[in-house]
Amino acid sequence: MSNFYALIMAGGSGTRLWPISRQNRPKQAIELIDNRTMFQHAVDRLETLLPPDRIMVVTAREYVEILAGQVPDVPRENFIVEPMARDTAAAIGLAAVHLRHRDPEAVMAVLTADHYIRDVDKFRRVLSAAAQVARQGHIVTLGIQPSFPSTGFGYIRQREQLDEVDGFEVCWVDSFVEKPDLDRATEFLTTGLYSWNSGMFIWQISRIMAEFARQMPELYAQLQMIAAALATSGGTEVVSDVWPQVRKETIDYGVMEGAEDVIVIPVDIGWTDIGDWAAIYQLHEPDGSGNVVVGAEHLSVGTNTSFIQGGKKLVATIGLENVIIIDTDDVILVCARDRAQDVKLIVEQLQSEGKIEFL
Amino acid sequence: MSNFYALIMAGGSGTRLWPISRQNRPKQAIELIDNRTMFQHAVDRLETLLPPDRIMVVTAREYVEILAGQVPDVPRENFIVEPMARDTAAAIGLAAVHLRHRDPEAVMAVLTADHYIRDVDKFRRVLSAAAQVARQGHIVTLGIQPSFPSTGFGYIRQREQLDEVDGFEVCWVDSFVEKPDLDRATEFLTTGLYSWNSGMFIWQISRIMAEFARQMPELYAQLQMIAAALATSGGTEVVSDVWPQVRKETIDYGVMEGAEDVIVIPVDIGWTDIGDWAAIYQLHEPDGSGNVVVGAEHLSVGTNTSFIQGGKKLVATIGLENVIIIDTDDVILVCARDRAQDVKLIVEQLQSEGKIEFL
Repeated sequence: MSNFYALIMAGGSGTRLWPISRQNRPKQAIELIDNRTMFQHAVDRLETLLPPDRIMVVTAREYVEILAGQVPDVPRENFIVEPMARDTAAAIGLAAVHLRHRDPEAVMAVLTADHYIRDVDKFRRVLSAAAQVARQGHIVTLGIQPSFPSTGFGYIRQREQLDEVDGFEVCWVDSFVEKPDLDRATEFLTTGLYSWNSGMFIWQISRIMAEFARQMPELYAQLQMIAAALATSGGTEVVSDVWPQVRKETIDYGVMEGAEDVIVIPVDIGWTDIGDWAAIYQLHEPDGSGNVVVGAEHLSVGTNTSFIQGGKKLVATIGLENVIIIDTDDVILVCARDRAQDVKLIVEQLQSEGKIEFL
Repeated sequence: MSNFYALIMAGGSGTRLWPISRQNRPKQAIELIDNRTMFQHAVDRLETLLPPDRIMVVTAREYVEILAGQVPDVPRENFIVEPMARDTAAAIGLAAVHLRHRDPEAVMAVLTADHYIRDVDKFRRVLSAAAQVARQGHIVTLGIQPSFPSTGFGYIRQREQLDEVDGFEVCWVDSFVEKPDLDRATEFLTTGLYSWNSGMFIWQISRIMAEFARQMPELYAQLQMIAAALATSGGTEVVSDVWPQVRKETIDYGVMEGAEDVIVIPVDIGWTDIGDWAAIYQLHEPDGSGNVVVGAEHLSVGTNTSFIQGGKKLVATIGLENVIIIDTDDVILVCARDRAQDVKLIVEQLQSEGKIEFL
């Protein structure tokens, strides 16, 4: 499939993974799980599926150099820079006009750099199946089969099966559902009709542009201005002019919820959102006390189900349960594991107090 | 009172205050509370009561230099070195023969370097009163009026009052009681007859030597050998020969429990045993969240009743209660506050694993 392209969304800042994730080195640019960065994994996963020159990346200006340096096989011109963050609809739209300029027949897979996928082979196969479905004009989304009643993800409710492609069930989408409370999430799981919204989408470039035109006409007009400039000057200046006026909107709210004939392919690929330190703890095999220790010399007396990441220092812990300890060169974070989401509040405090050296 | 002397016991290693207290810099040699070390405070407290040349110190060979350097007014020859730790009876005995050699009429106050005393003025006054009582031939001990039913201290049960000296109640001791369980400790408090055994004793040198002769004849004989050598060669060599054979015994068990006409002066001087990090937490005024932060830059989200000592690093804490965090150049300790005693288990692990760089 020579006109199948991937777009890796790599613009996030990852404040919930502070203090490892920093302003000049966001989470997708770090070796969080092993000796490859999250972004390198996102590129690695596409190997055999499509060549590096068909991998596009959208990110922020301050991250371009570090990310490009990590994947030398991906051409530098495939990195699309957002002058400022305008959420997923605009980021995808910007990449889409670049891609349309390059190949109007393109089928585009929108992928992420902040998820871990255990079963990479299956991921490749389902992407390939999704591309076949997208080629028929559908908007396709990958639905993750829920492993627990998460209240942290949006859900996709499916209708009847439309087809089976390469062994994958292909279903009509009934609706997109925002993050539920625990009762509803539990109910969702019992029906078997819901999957997690992974934020991975596959569509023809012509189809998504038509959706922008229909559902987000203001953004579409702005994208068309950029498209016109792309054909002549390269577009950078026009993007700089237009972008500050672009409204922030998610692709889910701006396009997906209002789109017709949307397809979901529910799949189990060992997908994990690397959202916070608690998620990273879950990715590792704990020791006999339920502890996960990464890169630290650790001595324990009565410490259980905790996550410790070093660090040049010896970390000694006594009588702790469900605690996260992260030691970096300039910061020590000690956090209750069930409060891992609140790491972003520390980052907000640092911002409001102007302590930029720790951001 | 020109023949009143103080002996400061400064030989402990303070493993429960690791990782600040280290093998080459034990807790008495560190600024644990303010900018004076515990040992300096022990010397400072005697100011106006007796001159520096009447302050004796008994300690281990490896601590002599650091301690002597901290109190330049105390003559170097007043530091008595134990070749190895042989517990309090032998340490006091060794100091006693040195002191008898210098002044057979001496009255000796045995004091500690690992306690904090808030009311220094009252401490001086009660010591002075105790010296007057000791001069009558009694063994005197300072009893600390208990502020809570501690199970960590031995207790002294008093009989009827014998006298009042300078406003202090002077009572006969009924018995010394080992560390009780919580029920007994609670009962002790209701009677009003019990005080904590502070480990501070005041006696004539002739009296304590007589007690050694009567109750610990083996130690007494060993001390007499040292005394004989003191009169001629200075004694260092004889101490090196004799000390390995000395049996370990506490002064409480070896002498106090079997002594007659022992006096207790129960007193409230704001005394705290600086035994572990939980005790140091208690010494400070906590902030509105009950936290005590010493020398660290600290950011908190939902952290309560915790103790944080830095450190060059920013310490960020989220969702913690009753936690102790100590950051040093090579170690981070994170410890449940009610497990502060178990810090010594970490030190034992380090010893058994031969990780001497952290000791």
